[in-house]
Amino acid sequence: MTTDLGCVNLRWALALFDGLIAGGMRQLVLSPGSRSTPLVLAAQRQPAVTVTPIVDERSAAFVALGMARASRRPVGVLCTSGSALAHWLPAVIEAAESEIPLLLLSADRPPELRGWGANQTIDQTRLFGVQVRAFYDPGTPEATPLALKQIRALGRRAAAESLGAWPGPVHLNLPFREPLVPEPSCQAAPEPQPPLALSDSADSLPSAIPAQARHALQHFTRHSGHGLICCGPGQWSAAGAAALWQAAARLGVPVLCDPLSGLRFGAASPARITRYDSFLRHPTTATALKPAWVLRIGRAPVSKTLLSWLAEVPTLLVSTSGSWSDPNYDVQQKLALDPATVCAWLAAESEINAADRAWLAAWRTAEQHIAQLAADYLAHAPWCEGQLIGELIAQLPADDGLLCANSMPIRQLDTWSGARAQSLRLFGNRGASGIDGQASTLAGLNAAGTPTTALLGDLSLLHDLSGLLAWRALERPGIVLNNGGGRIFDYLPQYGLPEFTTLWRTPIDIAFKDLARTFGLAHRQVSDGVGFRQALAESLQPQQPAGLIEVVIDGDVSRQTHQGFWRVVRGEV
Amino acid sequence: MTTDLGCVNLRWALALFDGLIAGGMRQLVLSPGSRSTPLVLAAQRQPAVTVTPIVDERSAAFVALGMARASRRPVGVLCTSGSALAHWLPAVIEAAESEIPLLLLSADRPPELRGWGANQTIDQTRLFGVQVRAFYDPGTPEATPLALKQIRALGRRAAAESLGAWPGPVHLNLPFREPLVPEPSCQAAPEPQPPLALSDSADSLPSAIPAQARHALQHFTRHSGHGLICCGPGQWSAAGAAALWQAAARLGVPVLCDPLSGLRFGAASPARITRYDSFLRHPTTATALKPAWVLRIGRAPVSKTLLSWLAEVPTLLVSTSGSWSDPNYDVQQKLALDPATVCAWLAAESEINAADRAWLAAWRTAEQHIAQLAADYLAHAPWCEGQLIGELIAQLPADDGLLCANSMPIRQLDTWSGARAQSLRLFGNRGASGIDGQASTLAGLNAAGTPTTALLGDLSLLHDLSGLLAWRALERPGIVLNNGGGRIFDYLPQYGLPEFTTLWRTPIDIAFKDLARTFGLAHRQVSDGVGFRQALAESLQPQQPAGLIEVVIDGDVSRQTHQGFWRVVRGEV
Repeated sequence: MTTDLGCVNLRWALALFDGLIAGGMRQLVLSPGSRSTPLVLAAQRQPAVTVTPIVDERSAAFVALGMARASRRPVGVLCTSGSALAHWLPAVIEAAESEIPLLLLSADRPPELRGWGANQTIDQTRLFGVQVRAFYDPGTPEATPLALKQIRALGRRAAAESLGAWPGPVHLNLPFREPLVPEPSCQAAPEPQPPLALSDSADSLPSAIPAQARHALQHFTRHSGHGLICCGPGQWSAAGAAALWQAAARLGVPVLCDPLSGLRFGAASPARITRYDSFLRHPTTATALKPAWVLRIGRAPVSKTLLSWLAEVPTLLVSTSGSWSDPNYDVQQKLALDPATVCAWLAAESEINAADRAWLAAWRTAEQHIAQLAADYLAHAPWCEGQLIGELIAQLPADDGLLCANSMPIRQLDTWSGARAQSLRLFGNRGASGIDGQASTLAGLNAAGTPTTALLGDLSLLHDLSGLLAWRALERPGIVLNNGGGRIFDYLPQYGLPEFTTLWRTPIDIAFKDLARTFGLAHRQVSDGVGFRQALAESLQPQQPAGLIEVVIDGDVSRQTHQGFWRVVRGEV
Repeated sequence: MTTDLGCVNLRWALALFDGLIAGGMRQLVLSPGSRSTPLVLAAQRQPAVTVTPIVDERSAAFVALGMARASRRPVGVLCTSGSALAHWLPAVIEAAESEIPLLLLSADRPPELRGWGANQTIDQTRLFGVQVRAFYDPGTPEATPLALKQIRALGRRAAAESLGAWPGPVHLNLPFREPLVPEPSCQAAPEPQPPLALSDSADSLPSAIPAQARHALQHFTRHSGHGLICCGPGQWSAAGAAALWQAAARLGVPVLCDPLSGLRFGAASPARITRYDSFLRHPTTATALKPAWVLRIGRAPVSKTLLSWLAEVPTLLVSTSGSWSDPNYDVQQKLALDPATVCAWLAAESEINAADRAWLAAWRTAEQHIAQLAADYLAHAPWCEGQLIGELIAQLPADDGLLCANSMPIRQLDTWSGARAQSLRLFGNRGASGIDGQASTLAGLNAAGTPTTALLGDLSLLHDLSGLLAWRALERPGIVLNNGGGRIFDYLPQYGLPEFTTLWRTPIDIAFKDLARTFGLAHRQVSDGVGFRQALAESLQPQQPAGLIEVVIDGDVSRQTHQGFWRVVRGEV
């Protein structure tokens, strides 16, 4: 046995990574520190792991979140002891709500230093409380064969739990005694692990689902009256989506596709409906299309119009999530089954009812009518988000990603995106729906291999300034809507309150040009359609610095344009 | 009874502020949001409260921390529901460790929306776990006389608990049902509260201390052998400090004054020792000055040299803190008494032992010797932190503040500051000793009325970029040591490891000139003593924009200079 404790630390940390890698981890985002040194040394020695250093731990966790969101693999994030890991909490909450596999590896002081007033020592135990799926504090390293076997197993287990039936963040708090650096004589190397076959569970569609669930599905979809499928934020494999469209065709129902459902862009089906947030504002249409039942898949949709229109409609929720998504309290039953499996079963088992064709046709008519109405309206309206989003959806290359920030951008995209036949992966941190971490998430999405553009509000960008440090390498631009603060409040009852601008809208007086220069980013400022088209085209050129596209938009004009469109939709003008 | 729920929300929120104000709160830092609207409206109607809007909640909490640190009053921080409050965690941890009164006011969705998949809704209950002194979730607002009385009482109670025997953060999670904006007819006004007499407890020095404690103090300070008093990070009133110096004089012992003890700058005493981190590196001196007992006050000192030299010395800890500061495991007994009270009692009761004069004289000799050695050394050394800190301590106006960041700056200040007769309030976030939140803390310290300069490392500044948004109004500069990353690692065993620069030192390639311009700040770049003297003098001029002083320092030269000085100190050269 070695008496070099630094070597023990390293060998134990290496074994942990053996397990994490066997469990599917390939990316590690780390922030600098001293106590975390054995883990950093171990990560360096693991050729299977790509290490990305990010100084600000808050940004680091959102970068990891973006990587895990795009790759659907567990991603590690590593930091030193003290308040460092506290900066992870916002991303941990988003990961918990969005069910993203994050492996939180915090270095810690050993037990004998905790609570004795030692420097940079806080109580890290269960720091993330109920926001993580599991928490482990495996004690201090040893290098016996049994201890190494145990920590390897913990690595596999933590990775598996992060990817499990209810994916999410898992926290490993890892204490180290000094010395943290091994002697030069230390022999330590990773132990090759049997590779884990990571399969996209939605790709395999077992036809067998429990009898009770079959009964519920049959009973529900044969209700007296027309139904619909509502797909909120979620993920579909190609096979899963195909099963969904087949099921919809057999049932003769429309599929209302949330912008984050993954269904708006790509292989088309007549059942795909994307413009409900607009046409459901028309009272007669809203009444005519009211369904008798809803099969809901994924999280609740972004559209408030849709959500309140669905109130009182009996709902069957299909979800393997450990959360319970029923904000209207209409869920009659939750089937804890993979939606793709359920769709495949429905596609095979459902009776075809000819009368349902008229129902689906009515939805198609509403969809096409509003698409034409929007096109006509935007052709004559002042240039703002509507035209911008149309241009963006048209120009982004096939299979690209688009990160859409919360607050106004996702709502505007919901209104204006429509559908497109080419694939486009739309990403949004819609778990907690914060304006935080957007710049860092973009860097993470790109680092995971999906070239991804961002559509951000000005406050979102400024909430995550240090995320810009990771933008230099990006091949896709960040588009920031510079419209003078949090314009979502312009649409809420707060609009016009005393000190409205100072305390709610909170515009920030900053020169984006200087901001871009600070971070070594290209900067393009545009304020009309021609300018935006050109700036976007330039930014998407290979070998061109992408950087920041600053879109100057008059928030008041934008508001009038949106509200004008809704008046048109409601038939008021 | 009103049926306007928006009005009920507002009246209840007003009553909460009545209580918080009665409990001493005068400042509120808020981040924009919708759910928090009743609280914002209530704060606006409370003339006793100054409201500061800060968009990034992480920055907001550190601004509040700075305000509370300087004012010693409870400061409120307010945000909306969702991941917003998660950004407070780093500042909450610092407040908990540093015992700073923060009132964390998070708006929340009402219970019926929590856990049902509603947007921007997370489990906010006990989000800060053991990091807060108390947590309350008082339920949804009502406007009955009893409900208003209850929430007023909770405000007083929370403020009192934040200031209590063990000060720290207190979390109030406040749910609101819609509508959040009252009807125009709503009548709601604050109810004047009886003013609370906030006294600085250290100003009153009750001579009575428990018999058991008196016995312990007498027994301890009459040990066979010489003792010393070690004052770590803490606070002293003028009366308390006077009592300390009297006690030291009667006991004939030196007082080792940590840079953050509040004792290095201001009214002098021969007992004040500040250069121990240097002269205790000299083996003979270290042996000669080894004490038989230590009376420790406040947190553990910054100096590792001092701390390890004190190991094995029997220690009496005087502290009212709920924490237990004993990183060497030498504390024989902890007296949970106010240090000023203890000092006053010692000053009155201690026997004067003439023999002790030689002991104190030996300490004075060491202090003066090293001061001269440092002056001689710096006169011929390359210009770096030593000369810079000397200049800073000399130039800063009386009663000013100086925020010193963690990692290298506080250690360098520990080495080079010496003492000065004029008062200077030295601040440092030494609770968790993070490099986080420094720019925001500076803004908060200044907002509390103490003109405060900052001495920051480059990584510290870049860790809190959004804090720079609050710098435009500052009358004192932020001084950033641009030395190419985390130079503390240059002094640790990690120095020279593979990928040392990329994974530990992590320099950030950013132009501080552009950074300053982005935030509308003056920028002065200096790299020598003449330049720094002039830049500092300019920045301290009234009516001059203070902004950012970028000090370009060659980290390698600095390291050689420091290590050269320690060789001189150890008598090796």
